[in-house]
Amino acid sequence: MSELFLRTLRDDPADAEVPSHKLLIRAGYVRPIGPGLYSWLPLGLRVLRRIEKVVREEMEAIGAQEILFPALLPRAPYEATNRWTEYGDNLFRLQDRRKNDYLLGPTHEELFTLTVKGEYNSYKDFPLILFQIQTKYRDEARPRAGILRGREFLMKDSYSFDIDDGGLKNAYHAHREAYQKIFSRLDVNYVIVSAVSGAMGGSASEEFLAESEVGEDTFVRCLESGYAANVEAVVTHVPAALPIEGQAEAVVYDTPDAPTIATLVDWANGAGLPQFAGRTVTAADTLKNVLLKVREPGGEWELLAIGVPGDREIDDKRLGAALEPAEYALLDDADFAKHPFLVKGYVGPKALQANGVRYLIDPRVVDGTSWITGADEPNKHVVGLVAGRDFTADGTIEAAEVRDGDPSPDGAGELVSARGIEIGHIFQLGRKYTDAFSADVLGEDGKPVRLTMGSYGIGVSRLVAVLAEQHHDNLGLRWPASVSPFDLHLVIANKDDAARSGATDLARDLDRLGLDVLLDDRTASPGVKFKDAELLGVPWIVVVGRGWANGVLELRNRFTGETTELAVEGAATAIADALR
Amino acid sequence: MSELFLRTLRDDPADAEVPSHKLLIRAGYVRPIGPGLYSWLPLGLRVLRRIEKVVREEMEAIGAQEILFPALLPRAPYEATNRWTEYGDNLFRLQDRRKNDYLLGPTHEELFTLTVKGEYNSYKDFPLILFQIQTKYRDEARPRAGILRGREFLMKDSYSFDIDDGGLKNAYHAHREAYQKIFSRLDVNYVIVSAVSGAMGGSASEEFLAESEVGEDTFVRCLESGYAANVEAVVTHVPAALPIEGQAEAVVYDTPDAPTIATLVDWANGAGLPQFAGRTVTAADTLKNVLLKVREPGGEWELLAIGVPGDREIDDKRLGAALEPAEYALLDDADFAKHPFLVKGYVGPKALQANGVRYLIDPRVVDGTSWITGADEPNKHVVGLVAGRDFTADGTIEAAEVRDGDPSPDGAGELVSARGIEIGHIFQLGRKYTDAFSADVLGEDGKPVRLTMGSYGIGVSRLVAVLAEQHHDNLGLRWPASVSPFDLHLVIANKDDAARSGATDLARDLDRLGLDVLLDDRTASPGVKFKDAELLGVPWIVVVGRGWANGVLELRNRFTGETTELAVEGAATAIADALR
Repeated sequence: MSELFLRTLRDDPADAEVPSHKLLIRAGYVRPIGPGLYSWLPLGLRVLRRIEKVVREEMEAIGAQEILFPALLPRAPYEATNRWTEYGDNLFRLQDRRKNDYLLGPTHEELFTLTVKGEYNSYKDFPLILFQIQTKYRDEARPRAGILRGREFLMKDSYSFDIDDGGLKNAYHAHREAYQKIFSRLDVNYVIVSAVSGAMGGSASEEFLAESEVGEDTFVRCLESGYAANVEAVVTHVPAALPIEGQAEAVVYDTPDAPTIATLVDWANGAGLPQFAGRTVTAADTLKNVLLKVREPGGEWELLAIGVPGDREIDDKRLGAALEPAEYALLDDADFAKHPFLVKGYVGPKALQANGVRYLIDPRVVDGTSWITGADEPNKHVVGLVAGRDFTADGTIEAAEVRDGDPSPDGAGELVSARGIEIGHIFQLGRKYTDAFSADVLGEDGKPVRLTMGSYGIGVSRLVAVLAEQHHDNLGLRWPASVSPFDLHLVIANKDDAARSGATDLARDLDRLGLDVLLDDRTASPGVKFKDAELLGVPWIVVVGRGWANGVLELRNRFTGETTELAVEGAATAIADALR
Repeated sequence: MSELFLRTLRDDPADAEVPSHKLLIRAGYVRPIGPGLYSWLPLGLRVLRRIEKVVREEMEAIGAQEILFPALLPRAPYEATNRWTEYGDNLFRLQDRRKNDYLLGPTHEELFTLTVKGEYNSYKDFPLILFQIQTKYRDEARPRAGILRGREFLMKDSYSFDIDDGGLKNAYHAHREAYQKIFSRLDVNYVIVSAVSGAMGGSASEEFLAESEVGEDTFVRCLESGYAANVEAVVTHVPAALPIEGQAEAVVYDTPDAPTIATLVDWANGAGLPQFAGRTVTAADTLKNVLLKVREPGGEWELLAIGVPGDREIDDKRLGAALEPAEYALLDDADFAKHPFLVKGYVGPKALQANGVRYLIDPRVVDGTSWITGADEPNKHVVGLVAGRDFTADGTIEAAEVRDGDPSPDGAGELVSARGIEIGHIFQLGRKYTDAFSADVLGEDGKPVRLTMGSYGIGVSRLVAVLAEQHHDNLGLRWPASVSPFDLHLVIANKDDAARSGATDLARDLDRLGLDVLLDDRTASPGVKFKDAELLGVPWIVVVGRGWANGVLELRNRFTGETTELAVEGAATAIADALR
C-alpha cells in the first residue's frame, strides 16, 4: 500500500446518493471523468476483471465462443433494422472525416447476425452461441449512481443462432442456467423476473434483477409461489365472470357536481342507489375511460379508449409495453374538439362503440360486472352498466397499475413490490434480426431455413456497483471472496522492525501459497490503517500488532467481524486454511 | 474445428494489399466491419489476448500499475492542452444529447495527468508509472492494410510521473528495457530508432519499428554502428570548416538561360569559371534558397528562407519536425509580389540579409564553403559566394532530404534506408502536460514541485498484423509459439473409427499436459485439413494419418517444415517434450 495508486477519502463525494457510489469513490475504486463516465483505479479494475473472468468461464462452459466487435460502428446495419432511429437520444451518433455516419454500439444484434450470415451457410453449422465482453455506450438521459448507470460500460453480450425453435429454447435455457451459476458464484442476491407478458410468448424474456432498494426497476413477486415479474410483465389475475341475468337495467342520472372519480363516488353514496344498498360505493365500482391516440410504425394516428376501474391509474410503463411498438399520447383539448361525441370527463362505452372507437378494457372488467361510468353527456353518469350486456370491448389490455396486495397471476397469494437493478437479461428474439438481413442457411431438406436468434446480456461493470450495494456496512465495503481485489489485507500495526520484517515475510509466504495479499506497509497509524482496511473491504484482514512479540497475530473476518488469534509460527498455512 | 466459429477462404480478399491483411482474413482471424474497423473472430482474439498478456506482465514487472479510462472523453481537458484543435481531422468528435462536446480518446495524457494531480500531493508519492490496455480511436485519412492501421485499435499506453529529470530518465529506461523484453518474447524483428533530433534532447524519444517492407515509416540506419533514426531525427554529419583566406572574390554573372538548378549547372560548366578549373560543376555546388512563410502558434506569419545545397530537396517531414509547432507554407506569387526584393528564382543571401529575412542553412553549408547562388536580380547569379565571409546565416536547420550513402552522424559509416511499422514509442514528455494543468506536489523542501512526465505506447492490436507480416510463407501464417492461438493443431487424417477416437483421446491427454490443442475433427478430406492447418499457422501440427494402424503418427514443425514420426504409445509426453 505504500506504492499502490490509491488515496482513500474521508468524506462522501457531494454528488453521490447511493451507498455503492459513495463507497467506491471513497475507497478509491473509481473516479468520475464526466457524467456517466468513470475511470477504474487499480482496486476497481481488479474487481472488474474478476467478475469478467467468472462470466467468461461460465459462458465457455455452455460452449459459447468469444469474439470481439468494434464499439464504433457504421450506420447502415442499424438503419436496416430501424434502430438508428428507434434508439432516439440514447444513441451516441457521430460522423467521420468523410461525413459518413457512425454510432457507438449500444448492443450488437445487427453485427452478429451479419457475421453469422457471412460465415455459415448450412444447418450443420448450428447450434451456435457467440459472445463478447465489450465496452458499450448509451447516452442515458440521467446517468446516475456512479457505475450503476453509466454512459460507457462493460457488458457481456451473447447471441444464439439456431435453425428451429427447439434449438432457441435450448440456448435460452443454457444461458438461464449459466446466469444462475454466474450470479451465485459472484454472491449476488437476485431474482429472475418475467420481462414480457405471457401473452407474448411465455418465457420468451426474463430479467435477472439484483435486489436493491436503490434499484430503478420495480418488480412484483408472490412470496408464496416465487412468481416474479417486472411491472410491465404482470398478467392480471382474472376474476370469474358474474351472472348477467337478474341485474337491474342501467339508469342514467344527473350528476351535476361529480366531475372527478372522488366526487362521483360521493354522489353515488348520497344517491341511495338500489344496486349498492347496504354497502359503500368505492372508486372500484366506477369505470374510467381514458382516451388516447395511437400510431403504429408507419401508420396514421387512431383513437383508442381504455377502460379501467376508477381506483386504478394507468401505468405508463405497462401501457407502453402493451402498445409497443406503437407511439401513443393522451388526447388533448384540440383532439376532443375534433370528436364532439367524446364528452370530456363523461365518456362512456356507448358513444365509443356507436362511433367505432377501438375500446380495450382492463381484464378485471369481466362479463357481468356492473359499473358507474360516463353517460356521454355533460353532468350525466350511468349506473348499472353491465359488461357483456350493455357493452362489449374490443379486447383487454394490461395497462392498469399493479398494486401490493393484488392477487398473484398463479393464484398462490398476493403480490408485493420490490426494487431491483437489472444485471442480466435473456431474450428469445426469434427472427426479428434474421428477417432484417435475410439470414438463411440451407436446411436438411435442401431448402433455405431462416435462423432464429436469442440475445443475452450481463452488465459486467454494473455488477461491481451491485456487489458494493449488496455487501457493505457503515464502515465500508465487504467484497465476497470471489470478486475481492485481494484475498487478504495484511496490516502492519506495529512499528517494531522485527514485526515489520516478519509481516513482510508472512506476506511473501502467503503469496507463495497462491493468495493475493494487500500489504499495508505504510508508516500511518494503526487507526488509519484499520479504517482503510474496513473501507476497502477485503474479506479477510490479518493484523500484525502488539501481540507479535508474544508470537501472536490476528485474523479478522470483515463479514462477521469475528477475530481469531493465530500463532505466528505456521501462520501462513493456518491463514490459507482458514480462507479455503 | 467441427464447432469452432471459423470459415477459411480460398481467395485473397479483393481490397487487401499486404500479406498480413490477406492472410488474417483468409484464415478467419478478423473480418472487416467498415473502413479501418474489424471484428476479431475466435482465433484472432486468442492471439490478441496472448500479446496483451505479455505486455501486461512486462509492464507489471517494472512496477507499472494498471488502471482503465473511458474511451469517451469530455472536451475540456483536451481543450486545455489545445489537442482538441491540434488533432484536426484525426480526432473523432461527437456531442451528447445535451449538445456537450466529447471525443473518442486517441491517447490519454490529459486524463492521467489530471488523475495523478487529483490523488497525489507529495514528493513521497513518486516515482509512479500507470498504464492501461485500452481501445483507442483515430480517424485516419487512409485506413489501410487491415489492422495495421485501423481507426479503432487496442493500445497499451503508460505514463510516468516523477519529481525530477533523473526520475524521468529511470522511468524511460525501465520502459525501454521492458519493451525490448516484450518484443523479444513476441518474436518481433524490430529496431529502435531515435525519433527526435539530438538537438532537442538526446534520447528524449525513440520509436520501436518492426522491420517490414510494407511499413509506412521510413528510417535510416548505419549497419556498421547500429545507429538508427527515423528520417525526421537524422542529424546531418557536419563536415569540417574550410579556410576562407585565399579564396577568390565573389563575381556576379549574367545567366540568361539558367532559371533552374540543372540549367545553372550547365551554364557553369560552359562558363570556364576559375574556381572549377579541372572539375565538373554539380548541383551540390549551388545553393538553393527556398522561401517560406512561418507562423508560430498565436503569432503572425513571418518570412523564412532556407538555404540547401542544390542537389537536395527539402524533406517535408523533416522540415515540419524542425519547425514544429509552427505552421508553414511555401511563398506563392502574391507573397513574392509583396516583397519586391525577393527575385523569384534568383534569391541570394545578400538580399535576404539586407532585408532582415530570417535565414537558416543546411548544416553542410559550413564556413569556407563556396557557392553558386542567386544574385537577387533577374538572370544573374553569383559565383564564389563564401559562407562565413560573404554571408552568415541565422542558424542551421535539419530540413534537407536524407539519402542512402549519406555519412552516419556518428561517423561510423554510411546511412541506408529501410521501412518499418511503428509498434512502440517511448517519449520523455517533460512538463508539457503538467504545465497545462499545474500539476504540482509538495517537494522535500516544502516548496511546490512541478511533475515531469513520460508517455509510452505499444500498438497491441497492430502487433497481431506485424507478427503475421513477419512470420508467414506462401502457404499461410506461422505464429511464434508465444502468441499462437493454440499450441498444437491435431489433424485427424484417417477416417477409421479407431484412429478418430485415438486422436480424440490424444487431444485430451495433451490438454491435461497443459497444451492448448486445436483438434481438426471435421469430416473434410485430409488435403483440405492440411491446407487449413498451414493457413492457420499453429507452429506444431500433429497428423493422425495412415500410420496410425502401425502405431505411428507425425509431428510437423510449421516453421522448418520438418516432420518427425512418433510412436502412438507415449505420444502425448513425446509431443509435450518436443514443444518445450
